[in-house]
Amino acid sequence: MKNLTLLDKVRRGWMPPEVKEVAKRESITPEELARKVLEGKVVITRHQKRFLGIGSGLRTKVNVNLGTSPVNNNLSLELEKLKRVCLAGTDTVMDLSTGGNLDLIREQILRKSLVPVGTVPIYQAAVLAVSRHQAISRMKPEDIFDTIEKQARQGVSFITVHSGVTSRVVERLKRYPRVMSVVSRGGAFTICWMVANQKENPLYEQFDRLLEIARKYDLVLSLGDGFRPGGLSDATDHCQIEELMTLGELTKRAREAGVQVMIEGPGHIPLPEIAANVLLAKKLCEGAPFYVLGPLVTDVAPGYDHITAAIGAAIAGWHGADFICAVSPTEHLSLPDVEDVVNGLMAARLAAHAADLAKGNQNAWKWNQEMERARFRRQWKQQKRISLNPEKFEKLLKKGIFPPDNTCSMCGQYCAMKLMDTSLR
Amino acid sequence: MKNLTLLDKVRRGWMPPEVKEVAKRESITPEELARKVLEGKVVITRHQKRFLGIGSGLRTKVNVNLGTSPVNNNLSLELEKLKRVCLAGTDTVMDLSTGGNLDLIREQILRKSLVPVGTVPIYQAAVLAVSRHQAISRMKPEDIFDTIEKQARQGVSFITVHSGVTSRVVERLKRYPRVMSVVSRGGAFTICWMVANQKENPLYEQFDRLLEIARKYDLVLSLGDGFRPGGLSDATDHCQIEELMTLGELTKRAREAGVQVMIEGPGHIPLPEIAANVLLAKKLCEGAPFYVLGPLVTDVAPGYDHITAAIGAAIAGWHGADFICAVSPTEHLSLPDVEDVVNGLMAARLAAHAADLAKGNQNAWKWNQEMERARFRRQWKQQKRISLNPEKFEKLLKKGIFPPDNTCSMCGQYCAMKLMDTSLR
Repeated sequence: MKNLTLLDKVRRGWMPPEVKEVAKRESITPEELARKVLEGKVVITRHQKRFLGIGSGLRTKVNVNLGTSPVNNNLSLELEKLKRVCLAGTDTVMDLSTGGNLDLIREQILRKSLVPVGTVPIYQAAVLAVSRHQAISRMKPEDIFDTIEKQARQGVSFITVHSGVTSRVVERLKRYPRVMSVVSRGGAFTICWMVANQKENPLYEQFDRLLEIARKYDLVLSLGDGFRPGGLSDATDHCQIEELMTLGELTKRAREAGVQVMIEGPGHIPLPEIAANVLLAKKLCEGAPFYVLGPLVTDVAPGYDHITAAIGAAIAGWHGADFICAVSPTEHLSLPDVEDVVNGLMAARLAAHAADLAKGNQNAWKWNQEMERARFRRQWKQQKRISLNPEKFEKLLKKGIFPPDNTCSMCGQYCAMKLMDTSLR
Repeated sequence: MKNLTLLDKVRRGWMPPEVKEVAKRESITPEELARKVLEGKVVITRHQKRFLGIGSGLRTKVNVNLGTSPVNNNLSLELEKLKRVCLAGTDTVMDLSTGGNLDLIREQILRKSLVPVGTVPIYQAAVLAVSRHQAISRMKPEDIFDTIEKQARQGVSFITVHSGVTSRVVERLKRYPRVMSVVSRGGAFTICWMVANQKENPLYEQFDRLLEIARKYDLVLSLGDGFRPGGLSDATDHCQIEELMTLGELTKRAREAGVQVMIEGPGHIPLPEIAANVLLAKKLCEGAPFYVLGPLVTDVAPGYDHITAAIGAAIAGWHGADFICAVSPTEHLSLPDVEDVVNGLMAARLAAHAADLAKGNQNAWKWNQEMERARFRRQWKQQKRISLNPEKFEKLLKKGIFPPDNTCSMCGQYCAMKLMDTSLR
């Protein structure tokens, strides 16, 4: 009985406490939520004693990426980022570290995080291969599975696995060359190994072994898109769709095994292709929660990619994406500092809110209308209290000086709202 | 002959030099552009010896608002903003000053601007009424027309006139109350005057008189939306559509008189209503260039409204909006400083670029693909050179240190693109 996953329990018609808790927070009935978990349209992940639902009909969630790199390995900086983004309302974090003592870093993040923590275990397996065997291509399949199990045991909530990177897609990549080739690190590590060893991707070939580990720890699998486009020109191409179809097949197998699954999506997509990308992911992957990175809608604006990503994320969310990975302003340039990750998170959160309004989420509309009323009445303290980032609100409001209520901080006597107050009364 | 407007000339089958110049810059034929000017789908405005085309089939343009207010009257700050936004690639500026010596401020801005300058003459007329008669409601219609003519004579390129604010719309506002009433200052000044004097809007009633002035100076009219929604709940309502239909009728009359017209649009709109708003504006106003402020897609994010506006602007542009008014991060909070207006401009420019890609603009795709190639090759100096804001690029690139080409500034040896370079060769 110990080994039943959440999906197993719901299938037996039980109503586990995590379903009740999430349903309450999302203002839907536990029965409706249980049905969505059963259908795979919602996943519920946990961290310590807290539960988080991601998927159709729920508030759109946001993730922030953290982690060291070989060129910037500073654990205390990453822990400071973690603290700030938890306070600033992220729903999850992912630890993408590749520099320093990875087990220790993960342990610290898991201990201090207030939200579920995801990882990409192939990163650690690749780092291990380089330190033990001097090349990613010499990575052992054994090491990949051992790393996954170790991270699951440590308490990671969800993991990205690039199981859709198959020999068939690599063949397609040769037939349909891209401007940007492959920009997913997990995808590139895997392809590098496959090409050098002339073998199939172990995370595809031994997918059942992966499912066994996932069942054991009731780990949510986030099926990664190794072929996500890295530039607008590569969007929605043969490689991307071939991989997505494979992810759809793996989704079915995972569900049959009682394992919850999310699907990861692009990347860089021109505006008119975003809706089709969401539709395809939902159709081909049986309605599984869709987790998008951006999508960025132009490539020319380094330094502003939190904005280009927020544009794409709002549209993707509106059309059904359930989970948004924040992009920081330094994306494509350098590793972000604390302010950068907070700015990226805020852009993702406002995009998620715009999407929730578009989805007709009642809690989102209640919040928005509260702000409209407070703004029309020029109630500055109330506006601050309910604004996305109250700290930023106060900072920009004339250097923290609150005008009296009913007074405009900008137009003075020429305030439109004040004039209308008196004119039409 | 002196008094022929550009529209008159094109109607006679002439090919004025401004059409040739704009066509060349936009990579379309002069004949095609002349046809669009004739149909009213493109307007050409000028500043000193430079011409700017705005409308269908051309690059999406951006405007930055400048100007003093009674609570913040600092001309040198506004001139510094002007200088910075001209360097940072704005296509036009609007002087919205309401504090200080308005004629002098405008004169300075007109002299120093490198781009066409727009104004909202009703602001000066209202300020004048308050100083002469102690109330906006005591404004004389004469003063409105005199102000318009004075500003046109001074060399303003285009003006916003709220001619669609009619008694019929004010009646509708009473029948269909809004959360935010009227948030357009020009709209509120006009309604305040109309209600107090129990009279029709002079800029509607005496529209022909306005057209005479516009003809005389070949001034482009930007028909303002006094009833633009100030919060998502008020979007796409009876008031807004009634006003838009009036603007459509006035567009026809202006064109018959040889006067070029743009239409201004909202405002605050939920994501799913943006496309319909653009469609309606284009349909009801005979394809006139559509000039949008935002639209903002959520109200809860003061401090980040350059981002909420960029989301709406990208979608509006994709669906056919031609001209985007930048929104600064301090919108709804305080008057922007120099950095704020530059940040607002950059967000608007990247939204415009995303929209141009969606519109299939060939120049936009060329630029984007150049960046994709430079990024894949990790050519850092080339990326900087062609990026939206090269200064920002350099600042965020590890504090200005350029990595060698082919080297990743973030992932080091774990760079996906580098791995792909070697794996698939």
